Amino acid sequence: MSGERIARNANKAFSSLKVLTNKQRSEALKQIHDSLKSQKESILKANQLDLENAIKNHVSESLIKRLDLSNPGKFDTMLEGILDVADLPDPLGKVTLAKKLDDELDLYRITSPIGVLLIIFESRPEVIANITALAIKSGNSAILKGGKESYQTFKIMSDIVNATLATKTDVPSDAVQLIQSREDVSDLLDQDKYIDLVIPRGSNELVRSIKANTKIPVLGHADGICSIYVDSNFDIGKAKRIIVDSKTNYPAGCNAVEQLLINKHICLKDVEELLNALIENKVTIHITPELKKFLGNCNNNNNNNNIDEQYVKETEADSFDKEYLSLDISVGLVDDVQEAIDHINHHSSKHTECIITENEDVANRFLKSVDSAGVYWNASTRFADGFRYGFGTEVGISTNKIHARGPVGLEGLTSYQYQLKGNGHVVGEYKGGGGNKSFLHKDII
Amino acid sequence: MSGERIARNANKAFSSLKVLTNKQRSEALKQIHDSLKSQKESILKANQLDLENAIKNHVSESLIKRLDLSNPGKFDTMLEGILDVADLPDPLGKVTLAKKLDDELDLYRITSPIGVLLIIFESRPEVIANITALAIKSGNSAILKGGKESYQTFKIMSDIVNATLATKTDVPSDAVQLIQSREDVSDLLDQDKYIDLVIPRGSNELVRSIKANTKIPVLGHADGICSIYVDSNFDIGKAKRIIVDSKTNYPAGCNAVEQLLINKHICLKDVEELLNALIENKVTIHITPELKKFLGNCNNNNNNNNIDEQYVKETEADSFDKEYLSLDISVGLVDDVQEAIDHINHHSSKHTECIITENEDVANRFLKSVDSAGVYWNASTRFADGFRYGFGTEVGISTNKIHARGPVGLEGLTSYQYQLKGNGHVVGEYKGGGGNKSFLHKDII
Repeated sequence: MSGERIARNANKAFSSLKVLTNKQRSEALKQIHDSLKSQKESILKANQLDLENAIKNHVSESLIKRLDLSNPGKFDTMLEGILDVADLPDPLGKVTLAKKLDDELDLYRITSPIGVLLIIFESRPEVIANITALAIKSGNSAILKGGKESYQTFKIMSDIVNATLATKTDVPSDAVQLIQSREDVSDLLDQDKYIDLVIPRGSNELVRSIKANTKIPVLGHADGICSIYVDSNFDIGKAKRIIVDSKTNYPAGCNAVEQLLINKHICLKDVEELLNALIENKVTIHITPELKKFLGNCNNNNNNNNIDEQYVKETEADSFDKEYLSLDISVGLVDDVQEAIDHINHHSSKHTECIITENEDVANRFLKSVDSAGVYWNASTRFADGFRYGFGTEVGISTNKIHARGPVGLEGLTSYQYQLKGNGHVVGEYKGGGGNKSFLHKDII
Repeated sequence: MSGERIARNANKAFSSLKVLTNKQRSEALKQIHDSLKSQKESILKANQLDLENAIKNHVSESLIKRLDLSNPGKFDTMLEGILDVADLPDPLGKVTLAKKLDDELDLYRITSPIGVLLIIFESRPEVIANITALAIKSGNSAILKGGKESYQTFKIMSDIVNATLATKTDVPSDAVQLIQSREDVSDLLDQDKYIDLVIPRGSNELVRSIKANTKIPVLGHADGICSIYVDSNFDIGKAKRIIVDSKTNYPAGCNAVEQLLINKHICLKDVEELLNALIENKVTIHITPELKKFLGNCNNNNNNNNIDEQYVKETEADSFDKEYLSLDISVGLVDDVQEAIDHINHHSSKHTECIITENEDVANRFLKSVDSAGVYWNASTRFADGFRYGFGTEVGISTNKIHARGPVGLEGLTSYQYQLKGNGHVVGEYKGGGGNKSFLHKDII
């Protein structure tokens, strides 16, 4: 099927999906849950084929790990996630503004679905269940395009989802279309007439290439270059915990810290202690020449310092614009909080940044000045996550400044519409439209 | 100055503007108001030069009317608008979500400015005052690019605004940069690193060309193809008032109606009365072959019908995808509300659509099913306007489904940030991050 046809069908299905009740949408999720559960064995068998292929093709270990649905608990967690989404409050039909413009002329702003989502992801097959659940719950049609590594798993799960929608639910089966790898994604990226939002889940390269090749708005992030600034008035225990957790809890995560800025008025001993906390966790620190000098040329003078030089490298020109996604971190000195703010606003990818300080005024200045989706005080950057924020689940983390920002849950998949209810009202009778009547503009409570 | 330099300066100014208080921002608007007021004579003199040029260049009358700042009340209304915006509640720093993730770990979602806006407009010079006020009030930097027709007016107003910001306010003067016509707009449209949102105010061609030439998100609308559907159970008095107002109150407005769908079960006499109401107001009706037949071939058989045939034309292939912006309207028949909904969702530009009916169930079905920014029941489409909605003023009307939708006031110029305040909290201690702690996820009241 052509991309245009797929997108048009999704758009048509959206019209039916848009008017379903929360009960109908949630019930559909429960049916999908039951179908996937009852066919667990077949799905895991298909997944096994993908894994064998991946091993044959010498795919990286981390990718294989992501692909594998048979890891203890993974399949059940995936199923549970569908039910969790089904049980979330209805994100649609919420009145977010209600105003009496005049007698018998009432304006309401009501949350509504966006329309058609195109979700492009790489290897994780559980994304299918996750995104299907989020899309249906929020009343959006979804076109899912998976990576070739998960072809077999994807195919069987897509067949199950489509058959379930068609036979057991009020959701039209075209509301979730799962596109096999052979379809051309660039064809879909051209369908800005029918597709309202693209959500890429995968590598920076995937996101960048999609952004460069479509006029449809793209939700997500290419880079996650998160920073931590350690202020002069700080608690070394908290600082070590936060820095180590932010860097090592999951270095491949977009919310892992990549840049550490240290106030230069902190004493040498404390700076060494901070850096050693990283090194003890096998993190390679990429230090600026200034910091190197501050540490007393530790690299050249091994017997005179307390830093293990095998974990020390010098920064390069792009070290502060780099997302390592590994046990590496760029470290530099700054004079004060303002220099840290300026540095971050210039270099960061506007994902999540943290200040470590005991001084509330300095913290507030940082929180107010830093222009990123997440601004943290004395907490690990790894908290930037929809589940941790209490959103139930997330479709991704957005570094956009338009529409949803930060971890995006159901709310980020909704838009709104203005409903105006009158009784024959015309503009010509009001001031500004040619008449003399004034508007009331009273809140409806 | 290059577009890159202008955009970088705007971005730098944003960092300072972002941290100013509402009082500082509002005070800056009052200063701008006072400066423009005290130099009214010089501004009107410059405006006179633009008008003379426009007349010399045989510019259309409607454009000249828009250009003319000397129309009674126009200058004062412009000045008043600045003070109105200054007095609006602060759109920034509002807490829209507050959640205790755990003891001493609190999450807040706080409204924040977006960053740098690029506003491109055509002839209306009062837009300068309007947009400057909205941008500063919402904490965003703005780059304003005016049309060549208003060059002289634009120049003097821009000099006054910049001088006022630099000498009398806490707002950095680069927070509002007014770019003269000679600068290359395409150069600015490339600055997606520094510019966060483009807002074009002008013709469909302007908007389309901008959308086609930038990767920066564009807020606004190209077309305003609004529809009215008249249901079988309707009040003819209301219907006539609403249809005539929607079409004739200001036919060049994007919220004027362009498509009229009439339920085919309405009797001939009533349909004729509806159409005659339009014709009496010099509206040309473009009717479908089906409607023509329904009317008894009125065009060919003048003595047998009640419609003045000089105002009747037949529809063409694109009549229902057309924004006339004139005293013309496309008219067709539909079988029921569902056919009207399908027709509208297929043809409309998702701006504003209205149903005229006395049946609440039918109305609700329409309101729930139509996928447009405004969905109206028994009220003129002309109400789609920021002032009428009670937003004080507007930067434009958006047909986007991402970010702001419908009339966009200050709220549409804001984003949000997540602030997380902890006390050394790390993810490694929580479930999902390697530990055993659970999140509280309690609302903070």
